[in-house]
Amino acid sequence: MRREVTLRDVAELAGVSSRTVSNVVNGYANVTDHTRERVQRAVEQLGYRPNVLARNLAQGRSGQIAVVVPYLDTPYFSELLQSVIRAARVRGYNVLIDQTDGDPEHERAFIAHGSRRLLFDGVIFSPLGLDQQALADRDPTLPLVILGERSSDGSFDHIGIDDVAASRQATEHLLDLGRQRIAAIGDQPYATGEAAQRRTRGFREAHAARGLTPREDLIISTPRFNRPDGARAMAHLLDLPEPPDAVFCYSDLVALGAIRTLVSRGLRVPEDVAVIGYDDIEDGRFSNPTVTTISPDKEAIATTAVERLLLRIGSSTPPEGLEVRAPHRLIIRESTAGRATGTI
Amino acid sequence: MRREVTLRDVAELAGVSSRTVSNVVNGYANVTDHTRERVQRAVEQLGYRPNVLARNLAQGRSGQIAVVVPYLDTPYFSELLQSVIRAARVRGYNVLIDQTDGDPEHERAFIAHGSRRLLFDGVIFSPLGLDQQALADRDPTLPLVILGERSSDGSFDHIGIDDVAASRQATEHLLDLGRQRIAAIGDQPYATGEAAQRRTRGFREAHAARGLTPREDLIISTPRFNRPDGARAMAHLLDLPEPPDAVFCYSDLVALGAIRTLVSRGLRVPEDVAVIGYDDIEDGRFSNPTVTTISPDKEAIATTAVERLLLRIGSSTPPEGLEVRAPHRLIIRESTAGRATGTI
Repeated sequence: MRREVTLRDVAELAGVSSRTVSNVVNGYANVTDHTRERVQRAVEQLGYRPNVLARNLAQGRSGQIAVVVPYLDTPYFSELLQSVIRAARVRGYNVLIDQTDGDPEHERAFIAHGSRRLLFDGVIFSPLGLDQQALADRDPTLPLVILGERSSDGSFDHIGIDDVAASRQATEHLLDLGRQRIAAIGDQPYATGEAAQRRTRGFREAHAARGLTPREDLIISTPRFNRPDGARAMAHLLDLPEPPDAVFCYSDLVALGAIRTLVSRGLRVPEDVAVIGYDDIEDGRFSNPTVTTISPDKEAIATTAVERLLLRIGSSTPPEGLEVRAPHRLIIRESTAGRATGTI
Repeated sequence: MRREVTLRDVAELAGVSSRTVSNVVNGYANVTDHTRERVQRAVEQLGYRPNVLARNLAQGRSGQIAVVVPYLDTPYFSELLQSVIRAARVRGYNVLIDQTDGDPEHERAFIAHGSRRLLFDGVIFSPLGLDQQALADRDPTLPLVILGERSSDGSFDHIGIDDVAASRQATEHLLDLGRQRIAAIGDQPYATGEAAQRRTRGFREAHAARGLTPREDLIISTPRFNRPDGARAMAHLLDLPEPPDAVFCYSDLVALGAIRTLVSRGLRVPEDVAVIGYDDIEDGRFSNPTVTTISPDKEAIATTAVERLLLRIGSSTPPEGLEVRAPHRLIIRESTAGRATGTI
């Protein structure tokens, strides 16, 4: 029989006090990043699980947080979820996952129904179709952290990268390559969510900063940000009288779909058409060609989201809603830079 | 205000009685497939959600099922989970998801701790490292359905495709192409789980049926079934004095990694090396080249798993454990058949 791993074991391995371990596990803010990392490594190494049920029963909590995403089979969300689950687990929380298919009614129901509160103590929410009214109508006692789309109104935390700046950077990279006819795939001018509009804004700003105006017929709307959408949009673009010589795709999946269409039509990427994606999912690191992309710091997003949510759950008076900007960076790969060596 | 959608609304749209809708929603078996599909379509169309909390409180249940998978960011599991969530939702169940990273201790803990039963009524489990002893030691009152690896001992249901037959079929496809030196990537001879061993058995059987013996140095073990594993294993194979002219990969991710290595070394797929994968994930339908694969019927696996689990949850005496074989088929794409038209 293995004996149960205790808080004391974790403290010993991490070389800190039991109180410090307790602070990390409970998500309190008064711990340095360095110490937090050391404790987390010890927690993972020993397989320590806080005695959640006892703690929860004493505090009238479920010990679960819910994470709500539009689509589970979208790699960006599954990679993010993986990080959220790990961050929650070392703090003794289970994660209940729900997917909404982006349905506004489902999204609204999830944060409106106080009755479901029996199941979770707070929600990390990545909405697609939720409007401000639904957010305002939500259960006001529900601790809430929003990912991705929506600015905070002060009553919840919002964590995301600066989509406008990132999209401007992506477009500038294509302009720097000397491309003249840059397309954008993924616009959603009538969507409730703001992710697509922000990317289109960055795309326009990059052009405007150089005194250029993007061609309106090269800005393509898609229902989702997935491979089939990217493949179809690219086919449409190639059928134009003057097809593009570069494409800014609003996700790596869109980029992978677009590249598939280009390759199957006998075009070379990037020589004939350069392609840049968004999200930095693993797929784009192993595709042919590999995909240049905007890489959001998913680990930072996940950890911050869990920490802010646990802080809200543990607070008797709700903390001020924060706008958190997670870092991002441009990663240049073959789909814009070409192959380093070898031939196809 | 939208009024609440009722059982009666669903019955009306589906053209069946309220009792039939109730039977479907509660997962009872006495409904034909045709009727079940009609009801499910109506449930989804109307966004009907059974009044779970009331039902659960009356029955002393949580209204949640747990789904435990090794890795959430593996597309096979995220695609499967998506189907499980949909199937559970139309029956009024929430899904609690946990990932184990394939850690046997974590897997054991999940099915051993009766205390966690407060959170879920039953488990759909896709184990990696769990041994028979851990299965025997589990909480015997926990309704359990196992996916993928492990044969039923009569106390739980097991759902999976016939891995040996599918792997034989994949290997035969490569032999039919006239390939002489067929490698296998993904063997795990010392793993507790059986998935890898079964695939190797099918690989050997296909050779034996034609009086051939596979070269032992072409059977490569990998720690996981992911892209980096496939890329590394392929690099190793290409450095052999007599490299392979075809590769059977134990997952599509492995195949995508292997293809990446081949292309980056200037080799042609399938002309120089034909590649076949396993799982039929979306990635392989949009990659360059597209990936020939074994396609398990994920929808059938998910629906059957949920139905069997709800049947167990609803039964006062546990039903006999079933061995369920889900269908699979070989899907031939460019990585073995070459490009239909056009040039790269």
